[in-house]
Amino acid sequence: MNTYGQNLKITIFGQSHAPAIGVILDGFPAGITIDMQGIGRFMKRRASNGAAYATKRREPDIPEFLSGLVNDTTCGAPIAAIIRNTDTRSVDYEAMRDVPRPSHADYTAYVQSGGHNDIAGGGQFSGRLTAPLCIAGAMCLQLLERYGIHIAAHILSIGSITDTPFDPVTVDCKVVSEAMADTPPVLNQSAWHGMLREINDARQGGDSVGGVIECAVSGLPAGIGNPMFDGMENRIAAAVFGIPAVKGISFGSGFAGARKRGSQNNDAFVMDNGSIRTQTNNHGGILGGITSGMPLVFQAAVKPTPSIAMEQDSVSLSQHKNVKLQIQGRHDPCIVPRAVPCMEAAAAIAVCDALLEPKQMIGEL
Amino acid sequence: MNTYGQNLKITIFGQSHAPAIGVILDGFPAGITIDMQGIGRFMKRRASNGAAYATKRREPDIPEFLSGLVNDTTCGAPIAAIIRNTDTRSVDYEAMRDVPRPSHADYTAYVQSGGHNDIAGGGQFSGRLTAPLCIAGAMCLQLLERYGIHIAAHILSIGSITDTPFDPVTVDCKVVSEAMADTPPVLNQSAWHGMLREINDARQGGDSVGGVIECAVSGLPAGIGNPMFDGMENRIAAAVFGIPAVKGISFGSGFAGARKRGSQNNDAFVMDNGSIRTQTNNHGGILGGITSGMPLVFQAAVKPTPSIAMEQDSVSLSQHKNVKLQIQGRHDPCIVPRAVPCMEAAAAIAVCDALLEPKQMIGEL
Amino acid sequence: MNTYGQNLKITIFGQSHAPAIGVILDGFPAGITIDMQGIGRFMKRRASNGAAYATKRREPDIPEFLSGLVNDTTCGAPIAAIIRNTDTRSVDYEAMRDVPRPSHADYTAYVQSGGHNDIAGGGQFSGRLTAPLCIAGAMCLQLLERYGIHIAAHILSIGSITDTPFDPVTVDCKVVSEAMADTPPVLNQSAWHGMLREINDARQGGDSVGGVIECAVSGLPAGIGNPMFDGMENRIAAAVFGIPAVKGISFGSGFAGARKRGSQNNDAFVMDNGSIRTQTNNHGGILGGITSGMPLVFQAAVKPTPSIAMEQDSVSLSQHKNVKLQIQGRHDPCIVPRAVPCMEAAAAIAVCDALLEPKQMIGEL
Amino acid sequence: MNTYGQNLKITIFGQSHAPAIGVILDGFPAGITIDMQGIGRFMKRRASNGAAYATKRREPDIPEFLSGLVNDTTCGAPIAAIIRNTDTRSVDYEAMRDVPRPSHADYTAYVQSGGHNDIAGGGQFSGRLTAPLCIAGAMCLQLLERYGIHIAAHILSIGSITDTPFDPVTVDCKVVSEAMADTPPVLNQSAWHGMLREINDARQGGDSVGGVIECAVSGLPAGIGNPMFDGMENRIAAAVFGIPAVKGISFGSGFAGARKRGSQNNDAFVMDNGSIRTQTNNHGGILGGITSGMPLVFQAAVKPTPSIAMEQDSVSLSQHKNVKLQIQGRHDPCIVPRAVPCMEAAAAIAVCDALLEPKQMIGEL
Repeated sequence: MNTYGQNLKITIFGQSHAPAIGVILDGFPAGITIDMQGIGRFMKRRASNGAAYATKRREPDIPEFLSGLVNDTTCGAPIAAIIRNTDTRSVDYEAMRDVPRPSHADYTAYVQSGGHNDIAGGGQFSGRLTAPLCIAGAMCLQLLERYGIHIAAHILSIGSITDTPFDPVTVDCKVVSEAMADTPPVLNQSAWHGMLREINDARQGGDSVGGVIECAVSGLPAGIGNPMFDGMENRIAAAVFGIPAVKGISFGSGFAGARKRGSQNNDAFVMDNGSIRTQTNNHGGILGGITSGMPLVFQAAVKPTPSIAMEQDSVSLSQHKNVKLQIQGRHDPCIVPRAVPCMEAAAAIAVCDALLEPKQMIGEL
Repeated sequence: MNTYGQNLKITIFGQSHAPAIGVILDGFPAGITIDMQGIGRFMKRRASNGAAYATKRREPDIPEFLSGLVNDTTCGAPIAAIIRNTDTRSVDYEAMRDVPRPSHADYTAYVQSGGHNDIAGGGQFSGRLTAPLCIAGAMCLQLLERYGIHIAAHILSIGSITDTPFDPVTVDCKVVSEAMADTPPVLNQSAWHGMLREINDARQGGDSVGGVIECAVSGLPAGIGNPMFDGMENRIAAAVFGIPAVKGISFGSGFAGARKRGSQNNDAFVMDNGSIRTQTNNHGGILGGITSGMPLVFQAAVKPTPSIAMEQDSVSLSQHKNVKLQIQGRHDPCIVPRAVPCMEAAAAIAVCDALLEPKQMIGEL
Repeated sequence: MNTYGQNLKITIFGQSHAPAIGVILDGFPAGITIDMQGIGRFMKRRASNGAAYATKRREPDIPEFLSGLVNDTTCGAPIAAIIRNTDTRSVDYEAMRDVPRPSHADYTAYVQSGGHNDIAGGGQFSGRLTAPLCIAGAMCLQLLERYGIHIAAHILSIGSITDTPFDPVTVDCKVVSEAMADTPPVLNQSAWHGMLREINDARQGGDSVGGVIECAVSGLPAGIGNPMFDGMENRIAAAVFGIPAVKGISFGSGFAGARKRGSQNNDAFVMDNGSIRTQTNNHGGILGGITSGMPLVFQAAVKPTPSIAMEQDSVSLSQHKNVKLQIQGRHDPCIVPRAVPCMEAAAAIAVCDALLEPKQMIGEL
Repeated sequence: MNTYGQNLKITIFGQSHAPAIGVILDGFPAGITIDMQGIGRFMKRRASNGAAYATKRREPDIPEFLSGLVNDTTCGAPIAAIIRNTDTRSVDYEAMRDVPRPSHADYTAYVQSGGHNDIAGGGQFSGRLTAPLCIAGAMCLQLLERYGIHIAAHILSIGSITDTPFDPVTVDCKVVSEAMADTPPVLNQSAWHGMLREINDARQGGDSVGGVIECAVSGLPAGIGNPMFDGMENRIAAAVFGIPAVKGISFGSGFAGARKRGSQNNDAFVMDNGSIRTQTNNHGGILGGITSGMPLVFQAAVKPTPSIAMEQDSVSLSQHKNVKLQIQGRHDPCIVPRAVPCMEAAAAIAVCDALLEPKQMIGEL
């Protein structure tokens, strides 16, 4: 189903060219005043803004809150927010119904729905659905800030160009976020130039390019999460794979750690001014599915945008024959920069949901 | 919570040194006769068997079915199976309560439970809990086989030694499984020798080593799964991270795909004897969260066993000071070989749960 | 949470005086063309219509569908529908925050939300939230009709005046619905006159009156539902208690059956033209939580509207003292007639959710 | 599915004649020491004890805890408890497969499972499954007692004989429970004699008799629960209908309240020594789905045991013809006395689950 979460349930609805897209947050605590300008700023990070690497579709993406707030303060009722779809041009997409675009969901959605899927703009599978994800994420980020928990993501790589990774022991996401507030989402601004060059090369060749995003959560207390299916890795992965184009996720030293010896990958405990931390953070802040109090760090692989201008091979579903496909329309040659706030949003939702876990409460009753 | 699944709910319980560990399967179809010897064979692949790379703890791991079966045939009631814990030596573990083992869950479990966690043998966080996962997985595998769906995993790498990857277009898991029935779980047996050497080197140095497992599902029809949070990636990741030590997962071309251009990573559709398939399979059999009919392929990173014989740095929780820790007891220098059937089990559970999705049914009513 | 259902998830949101109220249906089958005029007719049965027994608040209650439909046909994406709140007069309700209305949720909502609840119009607790319930119900009714399943409810009693009950063995809900299409929802129209008299008496005394609604589902096949917590009684009760003011539910002979002997209450099986039915239907169409193929029949107790014009005793939350309360505003002296379609809606949702159960599907794969 | 609860998940498994029946509690707080003798005393109240009104089947029903406890103290891992089935005589039940017993689940289970259901002893539908419900309930009762919350139930009626109802304003369940510790579960012991007479009359006539149980929860704070589908009525009903034979439930004045005027049924608020309560308690302690701080009071209708010794009409499923049925075996002529602790157990589970709600926690973080 289109709902994430156990304690804070996030339900996302809408299609690219439906009247609206939106989100319901159920379980968000009452009495939290939302900074609406902060929501707007966050949404703007995801918006296309006319940037070179982004679609030309204009999406102001200002959410309208339909319920759950009284004077911008949560009242305990489910929070509903929608964004009207305005700049839609369904004519761009009609041919897609018969000739599925490679590496898009056109074909699989067709089969799954018995041909009833809304094809316009990719329907329910459109990256546009990350806008309501970001509304929910922006609200969760504001809630987390009240507890000193901050989240920041940056582009770790686009194509072969890499940014400096976070220092997993010392990263302070509040500082990082502020530093990147008016710049592209990289730690090393000189890497950004290389990335832009990769994107421009791809676009000029009628092509696209993928990348990796790194995301961190700092300020998280130890003891959040559960073993088995309910661990922080499971929960974050289940949220992050909700972002279209994500094809991989790793925590801490991840796949690199799998090549190491235990003596290299283990993180020794150490007393630090009376509190316990680890000397290194190959575990990415999670042990046994539970937060260790160290920064939670993960990386997500974002595939190259499947919409490319080059001619591709596909099939006609009606005629059962091979055909050539030339995709028209407005597309992002690289979705990675716009996916950065989506990653923060997904992480924020997963962390909020885990923080609201009932298990800790009984002692306080 | 300790439950996975929406349509087929798998609940795992037990601790390493509790009277028993076990599993409940709720929603498993009625009328399926279980091949108990097949369950036994599957469990044996996970068992330690006295192999050089495995713990010396002896676990016959024969499940006892308490409910849900009549003459080995499912009756529609929840299926409960348990394994008694017999070869437990709690004395090995008492010191762990005060001095958490690096990169184990001792410390995080302590914080999360307010110090009430069962420390013996790692308690609920023990790799031993993968035995009930394998019971459930073995049953799901038998169910899937009835529909021509097969699952196979192999070791893709241990340390720096790599096996031949699956051909993601042509892999036939039934054939692969049979080929590896009496051999180590690698496609290229000569790679196995290198892997064993890595493991022996690690063990002799009082160390451990990690690896990567690749898993494939063949025979899966197109159209299974959902977009957003309910995609096959989300669901498989949520199951696979339930296996302790997994720190990363990727689908299809995964992190490598994130370095590519769209023109390299896209998978063209093509007619093949009247049916649709893709020429390549960088998408790993999943598009938009839904199966494409191509083999579903994923890779999981398994960290090196954190239990190593070398002295490590840790802290005393009671005395708030740094201490040295020397771990005693029986441990696997490399958990990867035993994690192979666990990966198949997790995949089988996730796929069964998705296959039992109600969405497809209404037309048949 | 504000979500009902396992296979078809219904999420209701909104407050009486929020910008909008609405509903999300997730899991509704794709490819179903919705008769929008039918939805409108159903909503009208719930609307106040200026009837003597109803609030004077005008609610046209025409849903706007924001997603999930393409040309009025479901596309498999979540269906979102909203109703804008227009005729709201928040000034009526401000005093309620300090002086809770007896037998309303003002006090309990205040405590539960730490005083953050939206008090205007009863906020999230308003009977107005049954409008989105009815949107979802109307859609489910249309789906059920395709399978020959029909639902009808009537007023069994208001105050001491009773209607003829359904014949639980022979009731045909399609026939009953058509017969009541243009009349008050009673089987015996002469009972309606007595009921109206009860309502008028109550209103003229500044009072209100309660009643009982009986609801039946006909055409339901045998074998739907589950034992234990997932039975049809559990599921229908969990939906029906979602209608504010419902304080009791019984199935078949219900509380009367509890006074009987087994020999009187048991329903003998009998062959009837080659199919199996029961001679009587004291079991209300449900045995062991599973439908028997007989009409499913239940009764729900609706308490008298707590908003009455008479002066009542209450307390001032701020001053911690007893005060007198005179409720102002527009209210229904008897909510029972308008609750009749709500009962059908709740039953339709519960039945659809059970019908979409995955358990039956595997054989068809 | 066979799981109840959102925050505390209770999963019940087993069949009457399977190797065992049992229960998993997931989400029960860590660090709670269980009084095992208290569990035993509670289980004994449900056991048949050779009482005149009960089956002659001997069920010692001592639970064996397989996991989740260390030295009788919860450790945060899921708690698994089982009861071995010993005194089973499957031969009694073989004929049932072809000739369904009236008002039992034999026929509906047959249809639902495609004939694969376990028929022995009623399989999964047996009243025996209330034993694991009582294990879970007994644990929840012990947890609730720590917070001053107590639950008590008594027989309100058997046949036409009625006990004194609880005073819904003043009932103290701790006092009531202690008063009934060594007596039949009625408030007025003289009513018990009439009830026993009803039961004996029924038994001697080869018949059975039903009844009503009233249950109360005292000490519950105001503010527990939610509106809509997640109210205390919905949640308690969803648990209570999990007890086989329950066919109705009402809260507070229930069906009687539906005949009243608002002025009679409304419960005025009043200050009482600085705290708020209501003068009457027709609302049964729940307003808008949320507890009011008054005793929570509900009544449940229990149908007469469908197993009666008299000859009954039924059908042969194999021969499609009407046949006569004479039920053999050991049965309770009246299940009501043994259902009393089951009602307390169901209420305790529902209340614990609601108390563990995450919503209240965030302020404490």
